[in-house]
Amino acid sequence: MKKIINRPDTVVVDSLRGLAAAHADLLRVIADPAQVLRADAPVRGKVALVSGGGSGHEPLHGGFVGPGMLDAACPGAVFTSPTPDQVHAAVTAVHGGAGVLLLVKNYTGDVLNFETAAELAAADGIDVRTVVIDDDVAVRDSTFTAGRRGVGGTVLLEKIVGAAAESGADLDTCERVARAVVAEVRSMGMALTAPTVPHVGSPSVELGADEMEVGIGIHGEPGRARTPLVGAEGIVTGLLDPILEDLPFAEGDDVLLFTNSMGGTPLLELYLAHGIAEDLLAARGIEVRRRLVGPYITSLEMQGVSLTLLRMTDELLEYWDAPVRTAALRWGC
Amino acid sequence: MKKIINRPDTVVVDSLRGLAAAHADLLRVIADPAQVLRADAPVRGKVALVSGGGSGHEPLHGGFVGPGMLDAACPGAVFTSPTPDQVHAAVTAVHGGAGVLLLVKNYTGDVLNFETAAELAAADGIDVRTVVIDDDVAVRDSTFTAGRRGVGGTVLLEKIVGAAAESGADLDTCERVARAVVAEVRSMGMALTAPTVPHVGSPSVELGADEMEVGIGIHGEPGRARTPLVGAEGIVTGLLDPILEDLPFAEGDDVLLFTNSMGGTPLLELYLAHGIAEDLLAARGIEVRRRLVGPYITSLEMQGVSLTLLRMTDELLEYWDAPVRTAALRWGC
Repeated sequence: MKKIINRPDTVVVDSLRGLAAAHADLLRVIADPAQVLRADAPVRGKVALVSGGGSGHEPLHGGFVGPGMLDAACPGAVFTSPTPDQVHAAVTAVHGGAGVLLLVKNYTGDVLNFETAAELAAADGIDVRTVVIDDDVAVRDSTFTAGRRGVGGTVLLEKIVGAAAESGADLDTCERVARAVVAEVRSMGMALTAPTVPHVGSPSVELGADEMEVGIGIHGEPGRARTPLVGAEGIVTGLLDPILEDLPFAEGDDVLLFTNSMGGTPLLELYLAHGIAEDLLAARGIEVRRRLVGPYITSLEMQGVSLTLLRMTDELLEYWDAPVRTAALRWGC
Repeated sequence: MKKIINRPDTVVVDSLRGLAAAHADLLRVIADPAQVLRADAPVRGKVALVSGGGSGHEPLHGGFVGPGMLDAACPGAVFTSPTPDQVHAAVTAVHGGAGVLLLVKNYTGDVLNFETAAELAAADGIDVRTVVIDDDVAVRDSTFTAGRRGVGGTVLLEKIVGAAAESGADLDTCERVARAVVAEVRSMGMALTAPTVPHVGSPSVELGADEMEVGIGIHGEPGRARTPLVGAEGIVTGLLDPILEDLPFAEGDDVLLFTNSMGGTPLLELYLAHGIAEDLLAARGIEVRRRLVGPYITSLEMQGVSLTLLRMTDELLEYWDAPVRTAALRWGC
């Protein structure tokens, strides 16, 4: 196993120390139970947004903590759900009196543990709501999931609902906006290589020299099909068609196109894939109103790409464009 | 070779199409000869900054085109210098009447071709200056280089001189600031894996399952030593000590610490390495005043990390903090 780590059992806490040192202006890290908190939390009178999940998907979620996005992120061990106590501690730390919204990727452990945390917080008298995202069209059930998996749409969800909360929207509004994003967002990914979890020490799956996994999950879990590697046009078409058919997206729709690297794919290839997706959407009469291109929800060093399409309304556009200041996404003032 | 591409011979132009589509608000791409130009270039009365080099190091340099950083980037083929005509065309396109500063990484082909372009532009009556950066302390001469290689310091150079130019500084001042950065910046990198150039099809070097290359260049070219893989503490110490000894940096110095991913290294590991570097500098009484952590100068999918230290003055701090709006670096307004 080739990794820049000290020991497999301390990789998350060691990494969080570096995150805290790099971004002391934006966030504060609690080591045990692990939490990444907005530096100025709790923000009085603002709805607090809390997310989290297994580590290994960085910058998700800790890199999205800051003004205009998350109030707290709870990083579990690599590819392992955070504990209920961990999420409960984060909710308690960032609750500013206006309620807390939990944004949860649809994996069985995450859903269960966030739900338990929500019950603990409710017992404390905190108004807590939960929105689960399940945007991956690749497969219905999977290794870690009943139903669809939560993937790239999570990044867009956290940005957009973060803007709503920052603008002073109340808990009902934040929940409604979150459900609107979940209803309108679809994703699918593929990979050329598999990730290696530090405490496992070998790749999660074996992909042959000329193979790719289409519809792969963000833990390297199986997708729709293992197929021979094809060129970029074929790869992008193979992701975009199922996404378009699923919602379905139609001619005349306004969309946000998010072209995501799974971690190990160079930007040279990622922008190449993005350009193809733009052309395919233009040919269908779907207007790309906003773009996001980069490694934002990853699977350690896995080489691959995912596409996410969000059908935009004026309200979602306004929230997307609103200022954000986090380690990984930053624009506006 | 596992890559998301159409054909090896069109990878750069195909990727630039995606870059242009993703960032039409920031930049304009000319296909032949390839140039990435600031969308509002030429900016009348502003010193224009032009850089470039082989592709495969993205987001360098095209991702750094925009207000507060570069006016133009000239991407060559993968790991291949841009041509004199290409650089000359970019200089002509972005020259706004206040002169042009070429920021050139010290590789033999780059230095030669930018110099020829400078002569062509001078013959047109444009005041062109050139600053060469050679911040890599690893080796004196290398595969592509007489003298030291230009590596991570290039990112800091482009940001800081970009801020000077944006603030209205004249060509003399921009050149002086650029030379100040070059004098005060040092870097070194290492890798766990080698990059594969698309038109070559196989890795540039073979690194064994338990080996790392210390002092590696951004084309996968040899460094100081191929050694057994050690833990993160040993890796970071092995990069930081030669950097500190070289300038030398001393107790009481203020620095910017840039922890860079070579492309394929996950953020989980990168922040872990960054945290170790922070601790080592604190133990030496060197104050880290600013940080940059991420994949900013890469070598395709190569897994590895480089460290860059820049000794900061008040002037450099002010330019570093100034607003920047590019595809890859963005802060302020």
